[in-house]
Amino acid sequence: MTRTGIYRSRSGTPDSKTSAGNDGGGGGGGTTVMRVIVPLQGVVQGRGGLVLGSVIPCAFFYFLQFYLKRNRRDEPVSESDPANQDSGSYPENSGSSSPTQSELNGLSRSLSRVIISPRSSGAHVSVSGRANSILKGGDTPYHVGLKRVAEDPYDELGNPDGIIELGLAQNKLSSDLVSDQNSIGLSLSGIASYEPSDGLMELKMVVAKLMSEATKNSVCFDPSQLVLTSGAASAIEILSFCLADSGNAFLVPTPCSPGFHVDVKWRNGVEIIHVPCRSSDNFNISVTALDRTFSQAKKRGVRIRGIIISNPSNPMGRLLSRENLYALLDFAREKNIHIISNEIFACSIHGDEEAEFVSIAEIADTEENLDKERVHIVYDLSKDLSFPGLRAGAIYSFNENVLAASRKLTTLSPVSSPSQHLLMSAISKPEFLQTYVKTNRQRLQRIYSEFVKGLKGLGIECTRSNGGLFCWADMRGLISSYSEKGEIELWNKFLDIGKFNVTPGSCCHCIEPGWFRFCFSNLSEKDVLVVMNRIRKVCVTCKSQN
Amino acid sequence: MTRTGIYRSRSGTPDSKTSAGNDGGGGGGGTTVMRVIVPLQGVVQGRGGLVLGSVIPCAFFYFLQFYLKRNRRDEPVSESDPANQDSGSYPENSGSSSPTQSELNGLSRSLSRVIISPRSSGAHVSVSGRANSILKGGDTPYHVGLKRVAEDPYDELGNPDGIIELGLAQNKLSSDLVSDQNSIGLSLSGIASYEPSDGLMELKMVVAKLMSEATKNSVCFDPSQLVLTSGAASAIEILSFCLADSGNAFLVPTPCSPGFHVDVKWRNGVEIIHVPCRSSDNFNISVTALDRTFSQAKKRGVRIRGIIISNPSNPMGRLLSRENLYALLDFAREKNIHIISNEIFACSIHGDEEAEFVSIAEIADTEENLDKERVHIVYDLSKDLSFPGLRAGAIYSFNENVLAASRKLTTLSPVSSPSQHLLMSAISKPEFLQTYVKTNRQRLQRIYSEFVKGLKGLGIECTRSNGGLFCWADMRGLISSYSEKGEIELWNKFLDIGKFNVTPGSCCHCIEPGWFRFCFSNLSEKDVLVVMNRIRKVCVTCKSQN
Repeated sequence: MTRTGIYRSRSGTPDSKTSAGNDGGGGGGGTTVMRVIVPLQGVVQGRGGLVLGSVIPCAFFYFLQFYLKRNRRDEPVSESDPANQDSGSYPENSGSSSPTQSELNGLSRSLSRVIISPRSSGAHVSVSGRANSILKGGDTPYHVGLKRVAEDPYDELGNPDGIIELGLAQNKLSSDLVSDQNSIGLSLSGIASYEPSDGLMELKMVVAKLMSEATKNSVCFDPSQLVLTSGAASAIEILSFCLADSGNAFLVPTPCSPGFHVDVKWRNGVEIIHVPCRSSDNFNISVTALDRTFSQAKKRGVRIRGIIISNPSNPMGRLLSRENLYALLDFAREKNIHIISNEIFACSIHGDEEAEFVSIAEIADTEENLDKERVHIVYDLSKDLSFPGLRAGAIYSFNENVLAASRKLTTLSPVSSPSQHLLMSAISKPEFLQTYVKTNRQRLQRIYSEFVKGLKGLGIECTRSNGGLFCWADMRGLISSYSEKGEIELWNKFLDIGKFNVTPGSCCHCIEPGWFRFCFSNLSEKDVLVVMNRIRKVCVTCKSQN
Repeated sequence: MTRTGIYRSRSGTPDSKTSAGNDGGGGGGGTTVMRVIVPLQGVVQGRGGLVLGSVIPCAFFYFLQFYLKRNRRDEPVSESDPANQDSGSYPENSGSSSPTQSELNGLSRSLSRVIISPRSSGAHVSVSGRANSILKGGDTPYHVGLKRVAEDPYDELGNPDGIIELGLAQNKLSSDLVSDQNSIGLSLSGIASYEPSDGLMELKMVVAKLMSEATKNSVCFDPSQLVLTSGAASAIEILSFCLADSGNAFLVPTPCSPGFHVDVKWRNGVEIIHVPCRSSDNFNISVTALDRTFSQAKKRGVRIRGIIISNPSNPMGRLLSRENLYALLDFAREKNIHIISNEIFACSIHGDEEAEFVSIAEIADTEENLDKERVHIVYDLSKDLSFPGLRAGAIYSFNENVLAASRKLTTLSPVSSPSQHLLMSAISKPEFLQTYVKTNRQRLQRIYSEFVKGLKGLGIECTRSNGGLFCWADMRGLISSYSEKGEIELWNKFLDIGKFNVTPGSCCHCIEPGWFRFCFSNLSEKDVLVVMNRIRKVCVTCKSQN
C-alpha cells in the first residue's frame, strides 16, 4: 500500500488532529504539529489583533501558493484519472480527463463490458488511512506473546515444554463453579428470534444483583441503568464514543490495561493522555498529576472529556479506597468531565478481610443528580465469571443520554442470545452468587499468596495487591539496561528460555522499565511450582550474563 | 443537553464535513457549506493564482477578526471556568480562572474533599456531539413500528388483535430445520476459554461451504478469507471503517436496506450518497446514474470510496444478474473504488428454476488480482439460517489488508463462543446444508406466491422478486397525497386500523412515495389470510376517505 501517505496527507484534518492530541503520556510526536496549530488557532479565534490576524495568514497563504505551484510541477500524473494509474496520488478535484477516460465516458456502460472491458487498467485500490494506521501499528509484545502461547501451549501431560500463559487475563480457578450450575445446556429452538441488542431485562436484573453482591450489597444497582454489550471492550468503546468526539481525549493513569488504546482510539479517534504513576508513590494515582496534565492539554487546545480508571487497578491489582474515589470524583466535578470506572474484576477480590471493593456507584449515590451524570461503570460478566468466550460486557451509567445512545449503538456490538440465556441459567439460581463470590475469593487468595511467596523466594518483590487477577512484579534487577529495550530483552528470555508469557510493563504504558504483569489465576498450585522453576532458570541466565 | 449546539460549533470540523457530504441523495442541506468550502479549496490548492491566493484569505481573515471580536464581547462567561457554569460554552483556551476556582487550585486536592466539597458547583456535563446527533435523529418509522409490535405482538390464540410483524427481516419458515438438527444443546464447560474473536477456523470452513452451496458450488469460498463478526451490521461497519475515512462517502443505490445509515455513518462518520432508482426503470441500478453522482460528489470535493449493493436487492428482493455485476465491477474499476456486496440472503432464494444467485465472488474470480482487491462480501449466518439471535455475521474479502485490519477490529465486535459452537453443531452435519437450502427455497416460494396473489386480489401490485424475504408493494393508489407525509399517514393506518407493521419506502430511502416493504417470511399460510383481511380493511378506509 504505497499510496497511503499521499491519501492521508490529502484527507488532512483527521490525521493532524489525531497526532496533535497524542503527546501527553508516552511521547507521540505531535508537538511539532501543535507548535504550528496553536498560534494559528489564536489568529483564527481573533486573539491575534487585526493587523496580525491578517498579516500572518496573508504571508502564510502567499508562501503556500509558491510551495503548491512547485509541488504540482513534480507530480505530472496527478491530474489524470486513477483508473490509468498504477500508483501515485488520487486527484479529488481533477478537472480534465485523460483521452482514454473520456472515450470510456462516452460509451453506455451498463452492458458494454464485453466491448470496453478495461481489465488491464485496474489500479491498486487503497484501504482507509485509519485501517492502515491500525495495521502499521503492528503487534505489541502483548499480542505477540499471546500468539506464541497459541502456537505452543503448555499442557502438563500433552506438552510439558510448551509456553505457560501468564499474560492473558483469565480466571481458570473458578470456572467449575459456574459450569457445575449449568449442566442443562441450551438448545437452539429457545433462542431463535431477535432479542433486544442491549440485553434482556431478566439478565440485566441478574447482572445488577451480581454487581451489588460485589459491593456486599452496599449499592443497589438499578437494572434499567444497564446496557449489555458484546464484551467489556465494546462497552468502553461505546462509552468513549458517547462521551468524546474524535480528537478529544481521556486522561488515563498509568500503568493501565493494555487494551484501552484499542477500545478508545481505534474506531472512535479519541486520544488517551497518560498520567504516569511512579513506583516511588507506590503507583498511586495523584490528583495533582492529573490536574497538571489536564492544564497542559488544555493549553495545547486538546479537550479532555474524562478520566478512565480501573478498580481494582490493572496491572497493579489494587482496590481504590473511598477517599481515592471521592478525590477522583471531585477532580472530575471541578473540571466538569466524565469518569469511567472499569470495574471488570469487582468480584475477583483476594485481599484479607479488610480488603473491600468500593464501587464508584456508591460514591455517586451520595452526590446530587448533576454530578452522578458524569459517572459511568464498565463491567464484564464473562471475565468475573471465568467465561471470557461468552463475550458479555455491561455499561452502567447515571446519565440518561449516555444510556439512550449506548442502547442504540449495541446493534453494532450486541450480546448474543445464547450467551444471555446461558448466563441466566448459570447465575440466576438463588445462593449461587454469594457462594461464587466467596469461593472465588478464597481460591484467588490461595494462589496469589503462593505465587507472591514463590517470587519472593527468587528475590522478586511485587507491589501489594488485593484485587484482580494480577501480580505486578518488580524485575528491574534482571534487566540488562534500564530501558524499554532492556525490558523487552528480558521478556524475550521469559518466552524463549523460561517458556512462559507475561505482559511487559511497557504494554501497560508504565514509564519505568523492568515491571511485569503476571496473571496468576491461570494456574493451579502445582503450576505455580513449575512457573517458579522456569523463572529461576531465567534469573540464573540473567545473572550469569550481567 | 442545552449546550450541544455550542460544543458542536466549537469542535467544528467533523460536523461541517459531515453535512458537506450529505446532499447527494435525499437532501441534506450541506450545499451552503460546500459553496464556501469548494472555492477556498481551490485557493489552498494553489489554483487561485498568486494574487487571488493571498487577497482572498487576507480579506477573509480580516473580516473574521471583526466578527470574532464582536462575538466575544457578547459572551462574557466564556472565559470563566466550566465548573462554575450551569450552562453556556466550555472554553478550551481560557486564560484566567474565577476566584472560586483559584482558591480550589491552591488546596492540596487529594484528600481534601471534606474541606472543599464543591458539591453545589457541579455543572451539567455534556455527552459527545456525535452521541447527541444519534439521539437527535430520534426513531425512524422503521424503529417505531418494531416497538409498536413489541408492545402488542400478534398471537393467533393469545393476542389475536395484536400487531402482525411484517417489518422485521426475519425468516420463521425454516427455523425448525435448524433446531431439529440441534437437540443436543450446549453446556458452558465446552465454551469456557477465549477463542479467536474473528471466529474459529472450523466454523469458517462450514460457513465457506454454506456460501458455496448458495452459489450451487459455482464458487469455492476460501475459509481463510473469512472474518466472523457479531452480526452483519458489525460486518458492514468494520468494512466501511477499513475502506473509508471519516468524511469519505459510499454510493448506495436506493431503495436500500434501512440499516446502512447506522452501520456506515454512526460510528465511522462515513457518508452515504444515495443514487435513486426509479419505478419507471423497474428499480434497476443504472451505471449512468452512479457515474453522474460520482462526478457530482467529486466536484464537491467528496471522496467516494466505494459502492454498496445488496444481492438479492433489499427491499425489492431481486437477484442481480451476471451482467449487472460485471457492469458494477467495471464501474468500480474505472473509478478505482471498492465494492461491498451485501449477500445476507444468498440462501433465501424463492424464484423459479431459472432464478440463480450469482455471488460477486464469482465475477471477482474471473478478474486479475488487483481488481479482486476491491471486492468485499457481507454475509449473515444468523439471518439466512433463521436464527438472528445468534449475532453471527461474516466478511469475505479478497484484500489482505482489509482482512488483517478486520480481524483486529473484531475484538470490538466479536462473535460469541456459544453462537459459534451452536452453529457448528447445527450446520456442520453432512447433507444438512443442501437440504436446508432446498427446503427453505420451497417454503419461501410458497408463501411468497400466496402473499403476492393475495395482494393482487386487493389490487396491489408488487415488483417481480426472486430472492430475499420481502415483497416490494406499490401502494401509491392508497395514499392521500403523493408525498412522504401521505406515505406515513398510510403506514399509521396500517398500524392503527390494520394492526400490522411494514416498512415504509421512505425508511429505505425510496424517492417515490407510496411503496412499502412486506417481510412475508414471518408468516404461515394461515397468517397470510389474516394479513390480507387486515390490508383489505385499510384499503376500504382509504377509499372511503379519498
